[in-house]
Amino acid sequence: MLERKEEKGKYKVSVLVVGSVAFDTIRTPFGLATEVLGGSANYFSVAASFFTDVRLVAVVGEDFPDQHLEFLRGRGVDLRGLQRVPGKTFRWVGEYGYDFNEAKTLDTQLNVFADFAPKIPEDYQDSEVVFLANIDPDLQRAVLRQVRRPSLVAADTMNYWITGKREALRQTLALVDALIINDAETRQLADEPNLVRAARTIQSWGPRILVIKRGEYGALLCREGEWFSAPALPLESVRDPTGAGDCFAGGAVGYLARCMCFDAAHLRQAMIMGSVMASFNVEAFSLDRLRSLTAAEIEARFQTFKHLVHFEELAAGLGAPR
Amino acid sequence: MLERKEEKGKYKVSVLVVGSVAFDTIRTPFGLATEVLGGSANYFSVAASFFTDVRLVAVVGEDFPDQHLEFLRGRGVDLRGLQRVPGKTFRWVGEYGYDFNEAKTLDTQLNVFADFAPKIPEDYQDSEVVFLANIDPDLQRAVLRQVRRPSLVAADTMNYWITGKREALRQTLALVDALIINDAETRQLADEPNLVRAARTIQSWGPRILVIKRGEYGALLCREGEWFSAPALPLESVRDPTGAGDCFAGGAVGYLARCMCFDAAHLRQAMIMGSVMASFNVEAFSLDRLRSLTAAEIEARFQTFKHLVHFEELAAGLGAPR
Repeated sequence: MLERKEEKGKYKVSVLVVGSVAFDTIRTPFGLATEVLGGSANYFSVAASFFTDVRLVAVVGEDFPDQHLEFLRGRGVDLRGLQRVPGKTFRWVGEYGYDFNEAKTLDTQLNVFADFAPKIPEDYQDSEVVFLANIDPDLQRAVLRQVRRPSLVAADTMNYWITGKREALRQTLALVDALIINDAETRQLADEPNLVRAARTIQSWGPRILVIKRGEYGALLCREGEWFSAPALPLESVRDPTGAGDCFAGGAVGYLARCMCFDAAHLRQAMIMGSVMASFNVEAFSLDRLRSLTAAEIEARFQTFKHLVHFEELAAGLGAPR
Repeated sequence: MLERKEEKGKYKVSVLVVGSVAFDTIRTPFGLATEVLGGSANYFSVAASFFTDVRLVAVVGEDFPDQHLEFLRGRGVDLRGLQRVPGKTFRWVGEYGYDFNEAKTLDTQLNVFADFAPKIPEDYQDSEVVFLANIDPDLQRAVLRQVRRPSLVAADTMNYWITGKREALRQTLALVDALIINDAETRQLADEPNLVRAARTIQSWGPRILVIKRGEYGALLCREGEWFSAPALPLESVRDPTGAGDCFAGGAVGYLARCMCFDAAHLRQAMIMGSVMASFNVEAFSLDRLRSLTAAEIEARFQTFKHLVHFEELAAGLGAPR
C-alpha cells in the first residue's frame, strides 16, 4: 500500500474500483504514444472522479512514476489500495487502423499484474458502489468477499474469460447488479446472436442491469425488459479510442454513485454521462483530454447529447389524410 | 404503361419514386422465401404509402402477376408509370447469416431492368417530392430532366455506382437535396473514414441533407453541420432485413411529403418515421409485415422510439460536490 495519507473524500459515497493500471503504447493513424498511462482501473477512476470519490485497488511495479500518482491524487483518487511491488508495471502495445472499433494487440506484458491478488483496505470495505473492471472472474469474486454488501456492484469482462473461465464468470455474474460489456461479448456470453434474447439470457444469470457498449454506435441499456439507447456523438477528431469503454463505465457508475439512485431515470442519465466521458476521452491519446476537462464542459456535452436525439411528438395522427 | 385508370390521390402531395421492382429469393437463418415481391421502388412505395400518395416508375416483365399490382393499388400506389415489357422481371437471390447487416448476393438477373429507361408520365411531372432509388446515376438525372422543379429531391446510390460511375454520380448529387446512403457508402463516396469529415465533403457537392443508414445501429442525419441520431429498436424477431433501407427512405420521404415542411424539426421526425417503417419491415419476409400494418401501430411505435431515447435533464450542476 502507498503510505501517503489521503484526504477525506468530498462526496457522500465512494466508488471502489479494482482493475489494471498499465503503460500503454498505442499507434493510430494519427500518431504514436509510447508508454503512456493506461489500464482499465485508471481510465475508470479518472472518469468517475468527476462525479464522486474513487478508491483504487490495483498493482504497479517499481517503475511507476510519482507524477502519475500525483495526477491521480489530484483528481481525488484514493490510492491507499494501490499496491507497489517489486517488478515492472503491466504493459500493453496496441494498434488501430481507421476502424477505431477494433484494437489489434501487438504485445501484452502482464509483469506484476500476473500475480495480482486484490487486497481491499479495511477503510474501503464499506464502499457502497463497486466496479470490477476486466480481471479474472475469480479475482472479481475475491473482491466481493472483502466488502460489506455494496448497494451497487457493476462489472466488466472480456472474450478471454467468457471462453476460458465460463463457470467462474457465471458465479461472479450471480453477484453482479450491472454488467457492462460490448455487443460481441454479449452475443458470445449468451451464445445467441440476437441481442434481445441474449440480454434476457444473461440477465437470468444475475445482472438485473445490462449495458451493451457499441463503440462509435453508442450503447444500450436493458433493465426489466425495458431498453434505452444512448447515441454516440459524431466526432471529427477521434485520436485514440483506448479506454473509451472504461471511461464510459467510469462516467456511468460515477454518476450513479453521486446520485445513489438506481431507478430507470438515473440509469438513463448515467448511460449518457458514460457516453459523454467516452466522447471526451477519445479526443486525445491516453487520458490527456480528461486532464484538462471541466465540469462545465461535461454539462455542456450532456446538453449536446440531449439535442442529438431530440425530436418532437407527432402533431397529428396518421390515420386520415391531410 | 399499365392501362388501368387510377383513382385520384387522397393526399395533397404525391411522391414520385423511380427504381426497381423485383422478385427476391432470400435465405436467412429463419427460413427461405422464393420469388417474393421485392425491389427498391417497391419497398419504398409501400412504406411511403402510409403517409402520402405514391407514383411509381419502374419496369416489370410479362411474368409479373396481377396480385402484386392489386396489392400496390390497394396501398394507393399510382401504377401508370409502371412499364410492363416483354421479358422477365428483375430477379435477386441473396442470403444472410446471423449478421443481418450484410447481405451476400448469390445471383442477380437484371432481365428487363437491364434496359430500363425511366419515362415519367405527363401527369407525374408536377411531383413535388421525388425519390431516386438506387439506379444508374445517369438514369437518375434523366428522371430529373423530366420533372418540373420538385420541392425535394432525395436519392440513394451504392458502391457499384460510386466505383464505376463516380463522375456521373457527382453530377447527379449536384441536383439532389437529400442523399440517403449507408455508412460504408458515405466513407467510400467521400474517400474519408471519419463520418463528420465525409459528410462535409459530400455536402459540398450538393446534398444539403445527408442521411447515413447504419442498419441495426440506427441512422444519422446531418444538415447545416447539425447532427441528429435516430436509434434502431432492439428487436427480438428480425426475420429478413431485405428492403429495410428502402422502407426507411419510404417512411422518411413519405412523411416529409405529407408535411411538406423540410425544417430541422420535421427532418428529425422523418428520420424516426423511417426507422419505424424499417423496424416493422424486418419482422417478416418480403413486404409481408407492411401488408397488415396500421396507422395506429405506426403511431405507437413512434412513441416507442421516443421512449427508447428519452432521458431527463440534469437536476443539479456537477461543479460542486453534493
